[in-house]
Amino acid sequence: MQKVYLNNIPRHEARRLFISRAALPRRVETVATDGALGRVTAKAAFARLSMPGYQAAAMDGIAVRAERTFGASDQAPLQLAPEEEYRAVDTGDPLPPECDAVIKVEEIQFLPGGEAEILAPAVPWQHVRPVGEDVVAGELIVPAYHRLRPADLGALLAGGVTEVAVLARPKVIIIPTGTELIPPGEPRRPGSIPDFNSAVIAAYLSEWGAEPVTGGIVPDNLERLRAAAAAAAAEGDLVIINAGSSAGREDYTARVMEELGEVLLHGVAARPGKPTVLGTIAGKPAVGLPGYPVSAYLSLEWFVRPLISGCLGQPEPERERLAAELGRRVVSEMGVEEHVRMTVGFVGGR
Amino acid sequence: MQKVYLNNIPRHEARRLFISRAALPRRVETVATDGALGRVTAKAAFARLSMPGYQAAAMDGIAVRAERTFGASDQAPLQLAPEEEYRAVDTGDPLPPECDAVIKVEEIQFLPGGEAEILAPAVPWQHVRPVGEDVVAGELIVPAYHRLRPADLGALLAGGVTEVAVLARPKVIIIPTGTELIPPGEPRRPGSIPDFNSAVIAAYLSEWGAEPVTGGIVPDNLERLRAAAAAAAAEGDLVIINAGSSAGREDYTARVMEELGEVLLHGVAARPGKPTVLGTIAGKPAVGLPGYPVSAYLSLEWFVRPLISGCLGQPEPERERLAAELGRRVVSEMGVEEHVRMTVGFVGGR
Repeated sequence: MQKVYLNNIPRHEARRLFISRAALPRRVETVATDGALGRVTAKAAFARLSMPGYQAAAMDGIAVRAERTFGASDQAPLQLAPEEEYRAVDTGDPLPPECDAVIKVEEIQFLPGGEAEILAPAVPWQHVRPVGEDVVAGELIVPAYHRLRPADLGALLAGGVTEVAVLARPKVIIIPTGTELIPPGEPRRPGSIPDFNSAVIAAYLSEWGAEPVTGGIVPDNLERLRAAAAAAAAEGDLVIINAGSSAGREDYTARVMEELGEVLLHGVAARPGKPTVLGTIAGKPAVGLPGYPVSAYLSLEWFVRPLISGCLGQPEPERERLAAELGRRVVSEMGVEEHVRMTVGFVGGR
Repeated sequence: MQKVYLNNIPRHEARRLFISRAALPRRVETVATDGALGRVTAKAAFARLSMPGYQAAAMDGIAVRAERTFGASDQAPLQLAPEEEYRAVDTGDPLPPECDAVIKVEEIQFLPGGEAEILAPAVPWQHVRPVGEDVVAGELIVPAYHRLRPADLGALLAGGVTEVAVLARPKVIIIPTGTELIPPGEPRRPGSIPDFNSAVIAAYLSEWGAEPVTGGIVPDNLERLRAAAAAAAAEGDLVIINAGSSAGREDYTARVMEELGEVLLHGVAARPGKPTVLGTIAGKPAVGLPGYPVSAYLSLEWFVRPLISGCLGQPEPERERLAAELGRRVVSEMGVEEHVRMTVGFVGGR
């Protein structure tokens, strides 16, 4: 006779149980900084070099010794001799060693003999970028577990960090199973169902920072599913079997997990999402997702996303909440958390 | 003598002028649906097939003719003969042609002789998924200019759409220019500046949906910059020259744009961001970005992002706004929009 659901555990409890017993490994890999957009740092990164690494002109103009310009005014214009008393500089040029200030080109009148005439004194260190103005060697640039944004890449490169230690994306193997499943592009017959769930699951996993790998379709056959599950656990960090997670005659997911590892629970008190199997296969976390698309995706979000977020040191994003008044009564079974699709409107001020 | 800024045009006006004269081409390409996550549809996609494509069992149990079950009750259990009066079905199985309802396995008592005993009648079409319950052939699945999310991929595949027409990512060529620039990994000398801007610009462009290509560093040399700009305009949809956009002695960006196309404006009334050049090169939109990082990124966001969003048919995301009280006076020049970095706090209820 058929096995009934072993459990009917509330969703948050199921999740706590699973997270406490199943974790994804944190592996570190080193990648080129300019290819690290969106990756999560494995440790804090510190500047290796200062930026700028030398006193630099911050404006196009002339570099001078400020002292020499004191007293210049509208009434008493001052003329500086080229090379001896000033050097032309462009933004970013190193300041000549004897100089300590830059006068902007707009404030200079160049005379036919090459002299630069100024009408105001220069303040020492004006328009000079000191060493390390942007980044000082040894300074913290990004902390650990930080998701790298475009400007972070710039700060890292400015600080001489051309390679960065990031957390490896956990590798998730998706096993589509069901004798009725066919690849989405193949001709359909009555009883055949295109496997579109795998593409959706893979897309969510990618968005969440994991690396999904979809295996070939496995028919409802205990031996074949066992072999596929063992291979998946050897290859990946987490195994997702979709579907066969229910308690039907040919639902082998829980049985395979039992044989190759441990079933932590089978059946969550939520609708949709109830026929979920959580456990391990050969020591790797494993999830049996329901076949119905919405059930599968909710279950994925509830149980797989926190593992990925945890592995990448990220707080789990929360769904937006909205308090609303129900337009009609919604009745649900005792002890079951029901997820109901709604249309939200704003009617008569409510 | 040096050229002064041609313009000092308010940012929003500069942007309107540029957008009205420079647009990125909309090209359509066909990609596999399961690889189309995040891409933007070029046209509406309609279901080619219905899903399910046949009457399907929605539960594990038995398929029956509902009529035959009328009258079954606790008091009058009804026994159905295998094959003749019921057929065992699993979720997703095609409904046998003579059947019109499914009874869940939980509601059946199987007798030793194989008969299925039920205590309640089946309502016609209960637990049956009609043809097209999820997707009906010909139905709209996603509209044009829709950024594809994970569940959209599932709906497309369910509807038999295995390839989808999407907008090509506009190709943006980045030309880093400056005699002082060196690749970020090379040893630094006084006067050399690592080119980290290119990595940041490329990262922003990727995030916004474009395809960035960074060319080699071009020194401050008119002929070399002209050659690089002409090659970039031939290869890409948009050319970004960084930097040389100011009015210094060796700032050739505006001049090259003038020679190979048109300078729409040079100088924006914003700080940072002022030394921006907007125009075209060989008919392609071209932007000369300032060298200072924050200036460069703001200018990129102001002038390049709207072109990319427009090309991909997306509304341009707005920055979040926050009304706050200034902790100290901020003075700025007349006619210049000044962007000042702030720390926001909540002090004494304000």
